[in-house]
Amino acid sequence: MNHPVPPLAVRRRFPAALFDALKSRFGDRATSAHAVLEHHGRDESPFDPQLPDAVVYARSTEEVQAIVTLCGQYDVPIIPYGNGSSLEGHLLAVQGGVSIDLSEMNQVLAINAEDLTVTVQPGISRKQLNEALRDTGLFFPIDPGADASIGGMSATRASGTNAVRYGTMRENVLALTVVLADGRVIKTGTRARKSSAGYDLTRLFVGSEGTLGVITEITVRLYPQPEAVSAAVCAFPSMGDAVRAVIETIQMGVPVARVEFLDSLAVRAINRHSNLSFRESPMLFFEFHGSEAGVAEQAGIVQEIVAQNSGADFEWATRPEDRSRLWNARHSAYFAMLQLKPGCRAVTTDVCVPISRLAECVVETEQDLKASSLPCPIVGHVGDGNFHVAMLLDPAKPEEMEEAEAINHRIVQRALRMGGTCTGEHGVGLHKIGFLIEEHGEDAIGVMRAIKQSLDPKNLMNPGKIFSFAA
Amino acid sequence: MNHPVPPLAVRRRFPAALFDALKSRFGDRATSAHAVLEHHGRDESPFDPQLPDAVVYARSTEEVQAIVTLCGQYDVPIIPYGNGSSLEGHLLAVQGGVSIDLSEMNQVLAINAEDLTVTVQPGISRKQLNEALRDTGLFFPIDPGADASIGGMSATRASGTNAVRYGTMRENVLALTVVLADGRVIKTGTRARKSSAGYDLTRLFVGSEGTLGVITEITVRLYPQPEAVSAAVCAFPSMGDAVRAVIETIQMGVPVARVEFLDSLAVRAINRHSNLSFRESPMLFFEFHGSEAGVAEQAGIVQEIVAQNSGADFEWATRPEDRSRLWNARHSAYFAMLQLKPGCRAVTTDVCVPISRLAECVVETEQDLKASSLPCPIVGHVGDGNFHVAMLLDPAKPEEMEEAEAINHRIVQRALRMGGTCTGEHGVGLHKIGFLIEEHGEDAIGVMRAIKQSLDPKNLMNPGKIFSFAA
Repeated sequence: MNHPVPPLAVRRRFPAALFDALKSRFGDRATSAHAVLEHHGRDESPFDPQLPDAVVYARSTEEVQAIVTLCGQYDVPIIPYGNGSSLEGHLLAVQGGVSIDLSEMNQVLAINAEDLTVTVQPGISRKQLNEALRDTGLFFPIDPGADASIGGMSATRASGTNAVRYGTMRENVLALTVVLADGRVIKTGTRARKSSAGYDLTRLFVGSEGTLGVITEITVRLYPQPEAVSAAVCAFPSMGDAVRAVIETIQMGVPVARVEFLDSLAVRAINRHSNLSFRESPMLFFEFHGSEAGVAEQAGIVQEIVAQNSGADFEWATRPEDRSRLWNARHSAYFAMLQLKPGCRAVTTDVCVPISRLAECVVETEQDLKASSLPCPIVGHVGDGNFHVAMLLDPAKPEEMEEAEAINHRIVQRALRMGGTCTGEHGVGLHKIGFLIEEHGEDAIGVMRAIKQSLDPKNLMNPGKIFSFAA
Repeated sequence: MNHPVPPLAVRRRFPAALFDALKSRFGDRATSAHAVLEHHGRDESPFDPQLPDAVVYARSTEEVQAIVTLCGQYDVPIIPYGNGSSLEGHLLAVQGGVSIDLSEMNQVLAINAEDLTVTVQPGISRKQLNEALRDTGLFFPIDPGADASIGGMSATRASGTNAVRYGTMRENVLALTVVLADGRVIKTGTRARKSSAGYDLTRLFVGSEGTLGVITEITVRLYPQPEAVSAAVCAFPSMGDAVRAVIETIQMGVPVARVEFLDSLAVRAINRHSNLSFRESPMLFFEFHGSEAGVAEQAGIVQEIVAQNSGADFEWATRPEDRSRLWNARHSAYFAMLQLKPGCRAVTTDVCVPISRLAECVVETEQDLKASSLPCPIVGHVGDGNFHVAMLLDPAKPEEMEEAEAINHRIVQRALRMGGTCTGEHGVGLHKIGFLIEEHGEDAIGVMRAIKQSLDPKNLMNPGKIFSFAA
């Protein structure tokens, strides 16, 4: 596989003295075993792995601080590692260095049920968190599909199926503890719901992809479990019809909790993978949260909008087990799609456009994909204007990667032309460095670089991500 | 009046050549007329005015850019000026310089009704904006009481009565155009509802109080006018009872649109000012938004919670004119309170605490105030844990200012001890520079300063605010 990793994959020197120092402090939790490096030098992106020089399993903010301080003394890069589910090459050690594995920092530090907040360590996954909250009557809604770590979700400003109602990590992180490049530890906020106390450091670190510091504690907002939940699926004759139904739903102000789009190829994939029998046409999956009466009211309005947009086969899932079946199928869509082409990898697009342009953007993209030799199923968090094309390619065929990159490029250009963004929720990583400049312009990127430079002058924090810095 | 302006009120040199250059470009829109300087050297804070050297009325981003560039050439400070309603000394020219008046930049640039967004110039006020939206079926909910400019509200991360349901400026600004200290112009985002494209520059500038650049365009989210709106007031035997009713309402997840607290002194003030006859005891003002059924359901739950917390005199305002009367009274509370003590000025506190600590914080504060010689009415956006004490003092008596500052200090200490913030919505300005350090710690302030330094190395953008930089 010849996927081009950006040209700055220049490994830096990794001094034996640093490894010795890490071993002496962390013992077996500091390792250079090849299998461990292999595991930490990859993510769910199509990039070939780039191995770190060492992996250290940290157990506390103080330990992270010690690792960062040591690495700083030797000018060695640091890459925070959560659950490995990122999609844009965030975890690849393109300049070598130390991968800090945070999976052992997976504790719930404080549930403040009365305040609807919880403080956690970064390695806890969203499912683990919701498991820990089970008896409180509260839940953490952000759901990017993968069972990502809360630290990783903060670092990429993740969102997913529930964002249309509950917002993204941007709206739901209240405060962070961060280890900076120079080893200082800061808290970026309090547990107050709002604050005008100085620059919004919380939002600066949310989405910074490990390039400004290592997140070691996160306080997020929680929500009361809705009294009633109902889900529904329905099929449409065309993608345009489905998307127009969504647009009208949002514009009416219906507070849908989830509204997910799948094209017919994506439906075929989940039918096969999850043993379902949906009609293989464009579909919407809805979920409604509220009181019994509120859910019924929302569902009634949406059913009417769907009918006006030629939707059919409206099917309800009110029992929890039916809903689980439905959302498990949706969540396994990524892996289900990979199975459409045995041995393939996926290059996934992630544009997000103003919702008034969504139908146009999706329909133009559908036309564009018709000319492709690659299977390209489409799924989307369409209530936010965000959709993904998974381009399934044979890693042994460079021409397929080229084709996928060309399609991705056209999709991003289309989204930017329509006032959208190159990444709704996956982040920049290695893959969208060029697109980021197109989206923001050189001057805004200059501001981002100035901030990076001021907080990490030696460029040790996840170097090569977001910006193409020279080593 | 002897209120201490921080020691760095060191005026910088204002070269005649700069004024000549401004006059030659802007004609009568560049002025040093004393009355105009007087008007621009003050805000609603208790600080004595500090006059700028000149005021320039800008009409476009390009004009702002020209002013910033000229000032940069002469090392002269810049202070963006909206409607003058800030409360913490944000607009005072403590180092002299040019006040850029943005009130003529008050146009709506684009209403994107389908996307629920609008793009405006910074000088438009929230009332003007809602007037412009009247025929769209949409509204902009953020409501800090004063008819502040949208630019100023962005710069202070304002919120107000509706934030409990609709969030603050943090959640509602989608994108900004900003003129940086070096004259470059950047756009910080797109109209997409969410994005993971690099550092969150939008949130960095929201709340930066003019210290990082001048905001010249703002895109904010809009909301469909609710189908039904209902408001209610009720009285409580004690502040603790009222606040506990609010806490239970929030914890139940009732999506109240507004829930405002007034203590008995504040009620007396609005009774007198607005010719009302509420019982002079602690009160809550509620507003509910939703469908007819949804509003009825919310109101029913809240009525039950209120009854369980000894609330009485539940009075409904369902007709628009009754609601206007109610909220006009609430919005005039600040001026109504000033009339409790003729000739007084107000020092207003602005702490916000996790809601589980709100009753404790308010009750301790009430005890504390009993010992004071100053009238100190309390109002609060209690759904967010945010409340204000207006300490009414005679500007001719330094001992009253000292007393007010001592009370403020104790309230902030109390809030910080309870995990809260020194400012929920008013910002830091000149007044909370010290509290900011207590709240965040030196290291986090160091990060803020590093960002400031990297974007404004000559400290020309609203110097002396947020941080106590030397001139």
